[in-house]
Amino acid sequence: MSYSAPVKDMLFVMKELADIDSIAALPGHEDAGFDTAQAVVEEAARFCGEVLAPLNVAGDRTPSAWANGEVTTTPGFKAAFRQFAEGGWQGVIHPVDFGGQGLPKLIATPCIEALNSANLSFALCPLLTDGAIEALLTAGSDEQKALYLPKFIEGEWTGTMNLTEPQAGSDLALVRTRAEPQGDGTYKVFGTKIFITYGEHDMAKNIVHLVLARTPDAPEGVKGISLFLVPKFLVNEDGSLGARNDVHCVSIEHKLGIKASPTAVLQYGDHGGAIGYLIGEENRGLEYMFIMMNAARFAVGMQGVAVAERAYQQAVAYAKERVQSRPVDGSAKEPVTIIHHPDVRRMLSTMRAYTEGARALAYVAAAHSDFAHGHPDDAARKSHQAIYEYLVPIVKGFSTEMSVDVASLGVQVHGGMGFIEETGAAQHYRDARILPIYEGTTAIQANDLIGRKTVRDGGATAQALLAQIDQTIAALAEADGQPFKSMHRHLSAGSLSLARAVEFIVAKFKSDPNAVFAGSVPYLRLAGIVLAGWQMARAMIVAQAKRANDERFYSAKIATAEFFAEHILSLAPGIEASIVSANGREGVLALSEDQF
Amino acid sequence: MSYSAPVKDMLFVMKELADIDSIAALPGHEDAGFDTAQAVVEEAARFCGEVLAPLNVAGDRTPSAWANGEVTTTPGFKAAFRQFAEGGWQGVIHPVDFGGQGLPKLIATPCIEALNSANLSFALCPLLTDGAIEALLTAGSDEQKALYLPKFIEGEWTGTMNLTEPQAGSDLALVRTRAEPQGDGTYKVFGTKIFITYGEHDMAKNIVHLVLARTPDAPEGVKGISLFLVPKFLVNEDGSLGARNDVHCVSIEHKLGIKASPTAVLQYGDHGGAIGYLIGEENRGLEYMFIMMNAARFAVGMQGVAVAERAYQQAVAYAKERVQSRPVDGSAKEPVTIIHHPDVRRMLSTMRAYTEGARALAYVAAAHSDFAHGHPDDAARKSHQAIYEYLVPIVKGFSTEMSVDVASLGVQVHGGMGFIEETGAAQHYRDARILPIYEGTTAIQANDLIGRKTVRDGGATAQALLAQIDQTIAALAEADGQPFKSMHRHLSAGSLSLARAVEFIVAKFKSDPNAVFAGSVPYLRLAGIVLAGWQMARAMIVAQAKRANDERFYSAKIATAEFFAEHILSLAPGIEASIVSANGREGVLALSEDQF
Repeated sequence: MSYSAPVKDMLFVMKELADIDSIAALPGHEDAGFDTAQAVVEEAARFCGEVLAPLNVAGDRTPSAWANGEVTTTPGFKAAFRQFAEGGWQGVIHPVDFGGQGLPKLIATPCIEALNSANLSFALCPLLTDGAIEALLTAGSDEQKALYLPKFIEGEWTGTMNLTEPQAGSDLALVRTRAEPQGDGTYKVFGTKIFITYGEHDMAKNIVHLVLARTPDAPEGVKGISLFLVPKFLVNEDGSLGARNDVHCVSIEHKLGIKASPTAVLQYGDHGGAIGYLIGEENRGLEYMFIMMNAARFAVGMQGVAVAERAYQQAVAYAKERVQSRPVDGSAKEPVTIIHHPDVRRMLSTMRAYTEGARALAYVAAAHSDFAHGHPDDAARKSHQAIYEYLVPIVKGFSTEMSVDVASLGVQVHGGMGFIEETGAAQHYRDARILPIYEGTTAIQANDLIGRKTVRDGGATAQALLAQIDQTIAALAEADGQPFKSMHRHLSAGSLSLARAVEFIVAKFKSDPNAVFAGSVPYLRLAGIVLAGWQMARAMIVAQAKRANDERFYSAKIATAEFFAEHILSLAPGIEASIVSANGREGVLALSEDQF
Repeated sequence: MSYSAPVKDMLFVMKELADIDSIAALPGHEDAGFDTAQAVVEEAARFCGEVLAPLNVAGDRTPSAWANGEVTTTPGFKAAFRQFAEGGWQGVIHPVDFGGQGLPKLIATPCIEALNSANLSFALCPLLTDGAIEALLTAGSDEQKALYLPKFIEGEWTGTMNLTEPQAGSDLALVRTRAEPQGDGTYKVFGTKIFITYGEHDMAKNIVHLVLARTPDAPEGVKGISLFLVPKFLVNEDGSLGARNDVHCVSIEHKLGIKASPTAVLQYGDHGGAIGYLIGEENRGLEYMFIMMNAARFAVGMQGVAVAERAYQQAVAYAKERVQSRPVDGSAKEPVTIIHHPDVRRMLSTMRAYTEGARALAYVAAAHSDFAHGHPDDAARKSHQAIYEYLVPIVKGFSTEMSVDVASLGVQVHGGMGFIEETGAAQHYRDARILPIYEGTTAIQANDLIGRKTVRDGGATAQALLAQIDQTIAALAEADGQPFKSMHRHLSAGSLSLARAVEFIVAKFKSDPNAVFAGSVPYLRLAGIVLAGWQMARAMIVAQAKRANDERFYSAKIATAEFFAEHILSLAPGIEASIVSANGREGVLALSEDQF
């Protein structure tokens, strides 16, 4: 199946909802206006559609393979990665000083989307390298930056994140990998890391692992974790490669999906110790890792949008081609293509509405990140940062959960053919399933949303967003026509539900944490639906104003927004009931363990 | 992963909700009381747990394989099928006259559930044979019944249903397979059938295909379809096997799941014509097939319950074993098993509540079928039959759709391990995905629910059910305690939503069919949630009354019912908004084809 990036919608969101023009007015982003955005996105669309998309099925059928400690990636991946590197795609968002293009996150985001729609497994490699770059930019020494960042950005080397161990998944307090200081400033690292994406592969000359480990005297728990840089090949001062380090890939996993992306078990120090270099200060590893993770979590949220878009495109293509049954309204005597049947429409519209809503929310979040970094005003920066941080777990959790549902609908649209692997729809259903799990499960995102993002400021950021939503509701009230009436009704109800959920969570967090956390994922989902629905509401208002310029595009946007209101936002009050419970604790925690 | 049939819940539902005692009072079912039910279900549980469940993973890893027209099933399947046959399991529900046990459907249903939980792929073979038996009982000649039924029932031969062709999936009007009369009472059949479950295999001595085909002068469309019996080996008058017939398996599909179950492409008549025998009268094939399909659709609904139960059991086992993170309420200083975390509880409770609700609804439907067949009173039979027929598309559509969500939650409970195939959770996620597709997609079920089951009688059957729900609501109002208050609130709201949906559908069916059918699947889901929630409400009332007898079981039932109310029934009004739309048509059908 081919993939064609939805450039028009991407640019619409960037311009009309995420305010690229204001970002271009920030210091340092003078060249990052709409024209640049358009040029970059169109080139990304071309590259992803032509080079990466055709390799997506191949990656599923001929996964990465392990033999004797080495991993051979899917045929074609290595050459594609060279093209990716030469095109400068690894550096889009990274600093010019280290060879990047220094573009705003808002422009990088559609590129990431297209990359992941085209080839989710392939895109994971640069996604992890982005994380490593972020960590070094934040906490690396000048020498480390100078030695590693240009190599990452030019695509010579790639990066990994090593958090998980067999006993330490969501709970990093349980990390046992140890790092022993050698007295010369280096450490020797010993331990086993699992689930390491692209922990071993053949697409780059070196692989640089960022590894969570404990030094000998570190305190227990998460406050005793440090971050180390452990290259596969040691790096000489001039940047050339030295000896093979003592980190080895002992196996890769047999997975449900994203099969081209090798998921490695890495063994550190079985032959005397893997040489590692401390990043930043001892015992601050988790803090640095969170910086990487915020970027990575946002990116995984984009993977959700991306796989949903790909599944949607494939389902639409099939629905336009497959002929079956006469229309229910008797408008034709002969069987028609199934896109004419109301339930197929409902499924396609659900897929489309979720995808457009989640895209808009993510791009708007990216813009907040840009303002948080570049706005000249201190208070504005803080406020944008708070909103961005509130949105990251939602972008991650909501986009990925919906992507599973969207991919499942994609299979359903295909009927029996969807269950046959040759069709390709099933690959998206399998691939998407990891997204609500890695980089922090949806529950972990929801805990973050509740603890750090909602309760810590007493609900202030959530309230600020609700106040902005009220302005949109007021604008909807002034618009004519059923689509606007529907959106007004459901966005009003949804934002009230969200407000009550926030109030409940802030009020009960200390007195009844079990009741609050029992509603954590429903709260995340409610916030996602309301905030994405809000973006669809903003979009339909713009579309109405500009409708005459491009009837086809804008009328579709209005209809999709209406669909979002009537079929997705309408679920909000029901979800509220799962959060704001007179009886949350009893309902969810009433059973004793042995009653399960 | 092991499987242990939930015998206690099965028997509870049979006794307290589906009224097995009254079924035992029907003529011919004198021996089919609770004691018989208990003995049969316990034996089914033992056989399924010990013999079939251990083969489930093997079936996924070593699927059925095709070579030279023959299919070799997973090692162990053939021997297990012999045990199945010798245990008399094929005949549980079928007439004593042909070697069956003649037990009520209500007793057969938990057996079917256990069979499918234990091994979904294996269970498909008897499921299809059941369909063939039903068809012959309904429309076969006395000779056909005498020749084939005992062989089916003793497990010597198996049956298949041949509907689908490459161009004819949901739309059977497009069937092209032809049957030419030979003048001697037989026909020669020519054509290609696809997606034929167990269309070829090595577990039985003969395979008897029931095939939809057209005779030369048949009218166009569904009114020109006849049903033929085409055995793989021709059958002599004494029941011994004769010559190989001209039906050949040219390939099997490479599927997302249920891999042990061979899905065959069957070629009829490439070597002169496959000899076939007309079943019943010409051009009434679809009518007969619908009889098979009603039984098969109910059974596929049970597959949904079954895979949900299996996924639940696996997730519970993992959640009780995996240690990760301290409790959010600070009740322990050390990491605990994840079943102590509120969101894991929420996921497990969601899985459990859906499964128990869907089970109860399906068993109650089975009881209606028994009353419809055996009740001495004409009017009562008709009324039970109408309710059974209303419930069949709901049991099929609701149970299978929820099974996909439940299996997906099962993966999520496992975290990263869920994505690794060795864990086994992913198999359920893959296996379940076919259930909302085969034997009629959810949209086909929803169309049936709307057209034949709701509109045809002007909503009378739906209203009759709603009146029964009102009685339960009245009983809830008299009970004390938060669980009953919650259920009262959400069942009241849900039944109002369902009532309004029925009213809308009946009123608008002719004037605005697109608006009605755009809400068809949401209507089915709403009906499923409300009717399953109603069964949970009935269950909690019984549980309250009997609580002192078995605190552990009944308090769990009450808590699960409360969870169903607060987390599932609470969604009903939101779903209503997707059905009863001021603007259904514009929302779903507003886009032109080229806007997708």
